[in-house]
Amino acid sequence: MVDTTKTVRFGILGCAEIARKVARAIDLAPNATLSAVASRSKEKAEKFASENGFPASVKIYGSYDRLLEDPGVDAVYVPLPTSLHVRWVVLAAGRKKHVLVEKPAALEVAELEQILAAVESNGVQFMDGSMWLHHPRTAHIQQLCFVPSSAKSIGPIHFIHSTGTMPATPEFLASNIRVKPELDGLGVLGDLAWYSIGASLWAKGYQLPITVTALPDVKRNSAGVILSITVSLLWDQPIQTLATIHCSFLSHISMDLVICGSNGSVHLRDFTIPYQETSASFDVTFGAKFVDLHIGWNVKPEEVHVVNELPQEALMVQEFSRLVSGIKDCGSQPSTKWPEISRKTQLVVDAVNKSLELGCKSVSL
Amino acid sequence: MVDTTKTVRFGILGCAEIARKVARAIDLAPNATLSAVASRSKEKAEKFASENGFPASVKIYGSYDRLLEDPGVDAVYVPLPTSLHVRWVVLAAGRKKHVLVEKPAALEVAELEQILAAVESNGVQFMDGSMWLHHPRTAHIQQLCFVPSSAKSIGPIHFIHSTGTMPATPEFLASNIRVKPELDGLGVLGDLAWYSIGASLWAKGYQLPITVTALPDVKRNSAGVILSITVSLLWDQPIQTLATIHCSFLSHISMDLVICGSNGSVHLRDFTIPYQETSASFDVTFGAKFVDLHIGWNVKPEEVHVVNELPQEALMVQEFSRLVSGIKDCGSQPSTKWPEISRKTQLVVDAVNKSLELGCKSVSL
Repeated sequence: MVDTTKTVRFGILGCAEIARKVARAIDLAPNATLSAVASRSKEKAEKFASENGFPASVKIYGSYDRLLEDPGVDAVYVPLPTSLHVRWVVLAAGRKKHVLVEKPAALEVAELEQILAAVESNGVQFMDGSMWLHHPRTAHIQQLCFVPSSAKSIGPIHFIHSTGTMPATPEFLASNIRVKPELDGLGVLGDLAWYSIGASLWAKGYQLPITVTALPDVKRNSAGVILSITVSLLWDQPIQTLATIHCSFLSHISMDLVICGSNGSVHLRDFTIPYQETSASFDVTFGAKFVDLHIGWNVKPEEVHVVNELPQEALMVQEFSRLVSGIKDCGSQPSTKWPEISRKTQLVVDAVNKSLELGCKSVSL
Repeated sequence: MVDTTKTVRFGILGCAEIARKVARAIDLAPNATLSAVASRSKEKAEKFASENGFPASVKIYGSYDRLLEDPGVDAVYVPLPTSLHVRWVVLAAGRKKHVLVEKPAALEVAELEQILAAVESNGVQFMDGSMWLHHPRTAHIQQLCFVPSSAKSIGPIHFIHSTGTMPATPEFLASNIRVKPELDGLGVLGDLAWYSIGASLWAKGYQLPITVTALPDVKRNSAGVILSITVSLLWDQPIQTLATIHCSFLSHISMDLVICGSNGSVHLRDFTIPYQETSASFDVTFGAKFVDLHIGWNVKPEEVHVVNELPQEALMVQEFSRLVSGIKDCGSQPSTKWPEISRKTQLVVDAVNKSLELGCKSVSL
């Protein structure tokens, strides 16, 4: 019996590791159901389905095209290598499939513009796979710390710092798609830095920075793919804000996000992947002063806990499916919020690459 | 009756706010005693002594020269504006007074070299007032996280991030010596950034960076004094390490220090002035991995607590006095460790200024 609350039927294009996580998220989301999975070979898709315990109702395709022809698929999740996004997302949109695409959205803005033109002209929803944006912690920080009327508003933001690092194994560095120029040519800049750039833009209410500057410590593999990078972003409105971002496949895991304003600061150390699946926290320090003689502080950081019934990836699927249902069942227009977030993130990624080309000169946006 | 365990007799040159804190530290340190205080006017020195409850045994001078002539003074603490350091420290050393000088040590390396030549030729001890280096937390981190054989060694360091920010009042910005070009012309670069630069050098075992680069967000007051700055330091040995530093008089209080290596990371948010006077903590994350499907981490940060019987400024006075006693009573040579730390910090400060002059170009050291 079909669960009628699971309204959006997903197909998955490709059997990447991340697809295991999103397949589970589709299962967990109350308004989504997994309907089909495709790989370039039927054997691979069957193996993927069996390993992940998909029910027999999930159709197995040995070609992406065949999945896209399936009228029983409303939306596709695309975890393919970034170099294939433009081709398959444009084809999917042409088949009126809504598209949830793994980040980075594209290799460059010109490609993303092709993708966004296709989804717009076909009236389908687009979203990239930035899961952390859907964690209730993210909204909670925004309401508590960024809304000027809030009791703990941190005020105009002066400084943002974010990291995204993980120690890649030798196997990863030798063969993972994220370090292969023909597959994910952006390396860590498209992978972990997508989150840190996104977090900086989010903190600034998606205002674009005026300049983007790569620092001179970029490290690449022998094929030229970026393994480690540090970037600074500069805004001049409403006050000057600087963001520093450090992302690397070569260092111990870190996912720091620090946002410091006039009146307070917010600290997270697990902003991309929370320590635990169904709860998370962040620290707010508000109105700190030194006590007499500058011996000690008058306040310590306050830890704010947030409980999430569903993991952030399921919340992402739920939000995407909510938008798709609105289009499918109620005649709503696709939301432009998510494509716009992807586009702005991609613009900054492009500017980082341009800064690197120019020998770490600042690039104006 | 003179307390014979209080062997080093201090004179204080000037009645700056910070001198209140260090006078108390001299009182708390078991091997130091306050013997004299001088201001440019005797009235001011008397007021300072009375406000701080100094005992009648503390001599009051209406001139710095007179204090330096006092044979009952072994060592001087110099909290004068930085522009006066070279003059008074050289004079003090000439009078064979050991010198504890408030940071920044000098306005530039050339001045500091004069100071260090004077203390060396007179055989007296020199130390700058970086209190945090004397907190037992600092040594604890070093032993736990930086020694390769330790169970929680973070391994070779890839990334360091440090901040030093505080929201200056309008009065501070209008009239504090730290924003007056003729008094403390380095502004926040000599003040809060002295700690962040020092912490980055400390984490790297006082290896100098190969390049120093100012980022384009520097803010100055109308007199040209730096109020806010972001800097990156780059090392290439034993692996590439990048440090980012953000210091400002314009933002909410922050004193973050993050050090991320191959195997772990250390996080502090109060590294310069601990939240509390007699205990502090730091967080270590070691051997972190994502759990299956990258849902959550296998470990959370461990908070390591450190108790200090004396506050860090008293520990600084105690260490300085220990070195002075060694020279005075046992014929030891002055320690070169502390002058060398000051000199390296000052070299980086100079390089930041040079980078700013060159329009934020990288400066080699």
